[in-house]
Amino acid sequence: MTETNEPIKIHRGLKGVYFDRSPCTFIDGRIGELRYRGYSIHDLAEHSTFEETAWLLLHGELPNQAQLAEFDHALKAARELPAPILDIIRTIKLAHPMDVLRTAASALAAFDAETADNAREAVLRKGIRLTSQVPMIVAAHARLRQGLEPVAASKELSHAANLLWMLKGEKPSTDAAQLIDRDLVLHAEHGSNASSFTARVVIGTEANLHAAITAAIAALSGPAHGGAAEDVMKMAEEIGDPSRAADYVRAKRKAGEAVTGFGHRVYRAEDPRARHMRAGVERLSKEMGQPRWYEILQAVVAAMAPYARHGVNVNVDFYSGVVYHLLGIKRDLFVPIFAIGRVPGWVVQALEQMENNILIRPLTLYSGPDARTYVPLDRRPA
Amino acid sequence: MTETNEPIKIHRGLKGVYFDRSPCTFIDGRIGELRYRGYSIHDLAEHSTFEETAWLLLHGELPNQAQLAEFDHALKAARELPAPILDIIRTIKLAHPMDVLRTAASALAAFDAETADNAREAVLRKGIRLTSQVPMIVAAHARLRQGLEPVAASKELSHAANLLWMLKGEKPSTDAAQLIDRDLVLHAEHGSNASSFTARVVIGTEANLHAAITAAIAALSGPAHGGAAEDVMKMAEEIGDPSRAADYVRAKRKAGEAVTGFGHRVYRAEDPRARHMRAGVERLSKEMGQPRWYEILQAVVAAMAPYARHGVNVNVDFYSGVVYHLLGIKRDLFVPIFAIGRVPGWVVQALEQMENNILIRPLTLYSGPDARTYVPLDRRPA
Repeated sequence: MTETNEPIKIHRGLKGVYFDRSPCTFIDGRIGELRYRGYSIHDLAEHSTFEETAWLLLHGELPNQAQLAEFDHALKAARELPAPILDIIRTIKLAHPMDVLRTAASALAAFDAETADNAREAVLRKGIRLTSQVPMIVAAHARLRQGLEPVAASKELSHAANLLWMLKGEKPSTDAAQLIDRDLVLHAEHGSNASSFTARVVIGTEANLHAAITAAIAALSGPAHGGAAEDVMKMAEEIGDPSRAADYVRAKRKAGEAVTGFGHRVYRAEDPRARHMRAGVERLSKEMGQPRWYEILQAVVAAMAPYARHGVNVNVDFYSGVVYHLLGIKRDLFVPIFAIGRVPGWVVQALEQMENNILIRPLTLYSGPDARTYVPLDRRPA
Repeated sequence: MTETNEPIKIHRGLKGVYFDRSPCTFIDGRIGELRYRGYSIHDLAEHSTFEETAWLLLHGELPNQAQLAEFDHALKAARELPAPILDIIRTIKLAHPMDVLRTAASALAAFDAETADNAREAVLRKGIRLTSQVPMIVAAHARLRQGLEPVAASKELSHAANLLWMLKGEKPSTDAAQLIDRDLVLHAEHGSNASSFTARVVIGTEANLHAAITAAIAALSGPAHGGAAEDVMKMAEEIGDPSRAADYVRAKRKAGEAVTGFGHRVYRAEDPRARHMRAGVERLSKEMGQPRWYEILQAVVAAMAPYARHGVNVNVDFYSGVVYHLLGIKRDLFVPIFAIGRVPGWVVQALEQMENNILIRPLTLYSGPDARTYVPLDRRPA
């Protein structure tokens, strides 16, 4: 594959390479614009819900009342986790929540009557079931590892409120549920990020949806993709007080280290999702009598200003971690919550890939030794 | 990401796009050449073993006697499956073997002391453990779903012989073990195929090796990647007799359907791995008094000749499925056996990606609606 007279261009990280068209998500990283199916992320964050946004992503249009009610019903009906999945979670409960989520989501393939059916309608139905099951896995594991029994899912609450319910065993405040709902909307889709791309590569081999979602969870578990929220919370705790933010940033810059929560592979302006979580952190941290967290983050932003070439570009995870923390969610559950929000995005991208499928198989340029002669073991130097 | 005056090129399937360099595997698809680390696949198939080839792939050079003995010892020492993994396999034993393998390999993350350690040496050690554990999962599941107890791994036999031992509970003939050994050598690495590429995308996010291998198994489970051997065996059974091969091929071509086992994304000549399995099928089917299988395959090849523009290009899976069948291996285990062979290749590619890492994140070109105004639910048409 290497013999040619033209110099071969290597696209490391496939940066800037387009591998397909997608009608789902518009991103203009230079001006910080993000739209799902033509709708601004700002409108969706302020006026939509996770359920409505998921329907929009899956079907391309905003649902009418009947469509939304039907979808909501399907999501609630799917709030059932086969008992053997709970056994599996118990068996591996000491593992990292993303290792547990990946394993349990994979195991669901054994209990879904349509696992092997890759027809569009079957994939949509499986996508709905996985949307409901992924948060159940995360919450059940969070309980079991604390020695608590899982909380049965509510069939009344919204997707977001039910997540908090299953985590805590108590009805969340309207405000908390709304903030998580918004967070899930903001994380629901984001073009061909590494986890969605992984889902497409896997479904591109005609594997089943459970395989694709399992692989997407695997990709999201890497700190370079899903990890920023966790790191920001660590940073906020390390800084401890707003007055120390400037010193912290200066020391980091001096050491040539990145300050976490700034910058994003596709955004050169502020991540448009950030402002909605910023507002949430501000409100929540004041309401809960812990204004310090908001003040620390804002002090970090101010301290970053001198170093920012094109404005200070915080990303969504800069704020979402502190929201989770204020809601009493453990740090290693931040990425699983990202996963909970992203399931519809993965399903949409899998569906798109299946619709007009081609095996995704780029090349590596050979850089190893020339052909050489095999030497039998007994004639090799010791 | 879409505003530019130049027309944007879309590389569907990333066909022909180079995303990195790799010193591991040389493939020239036009002349059907394949080398691992500079050594011809023909020499390796005829003179090497799976253990030696795995070491070669992982370290870049052929091992000397001490190195090979140490590696062999490490592989044998790693022939231990934590008891909870067997429980998980039991729990999901009715699922497809690839769904089971993916789930159990993922679950191993819970029991490996080095799961979260992404240092090179730790990844190598985990790679050795997974190389030994993957066949144990496949064999244990194959037994459990038949209502049989798993066969404890031998700590004496070669990797290939131990696989047959664990599947059957009896010592395989030298010939059978050698044929499987050769098959594993032939499947050990193949550049940036979909599953290895998946492993690289996942490790590119800095996820752990178990995540990468789980995702690779997910990609391999798709029939467009791992499935050809299974399909060839189905075809051979459907044809039933060499005299019917020509009619079968003619009917397929007339219907515009592909004849399975021919052609490969990277080979325009015969897949160089095919001849070694062809020789195996010929010998084995005669020895076992079932020459029919070899004759059917050769009749299909002859019948394909008029349709082949550049010669008849059978791929390795055209023959390997019949080898497995003759060794009494069930059809849905063909792809898991491919996985068993490929583990070293996945580990090598994960290591390469980690060494000079960059997040792998190509783009999709937006093809959806322009910006549109959000309409509240109660004002949408029913």
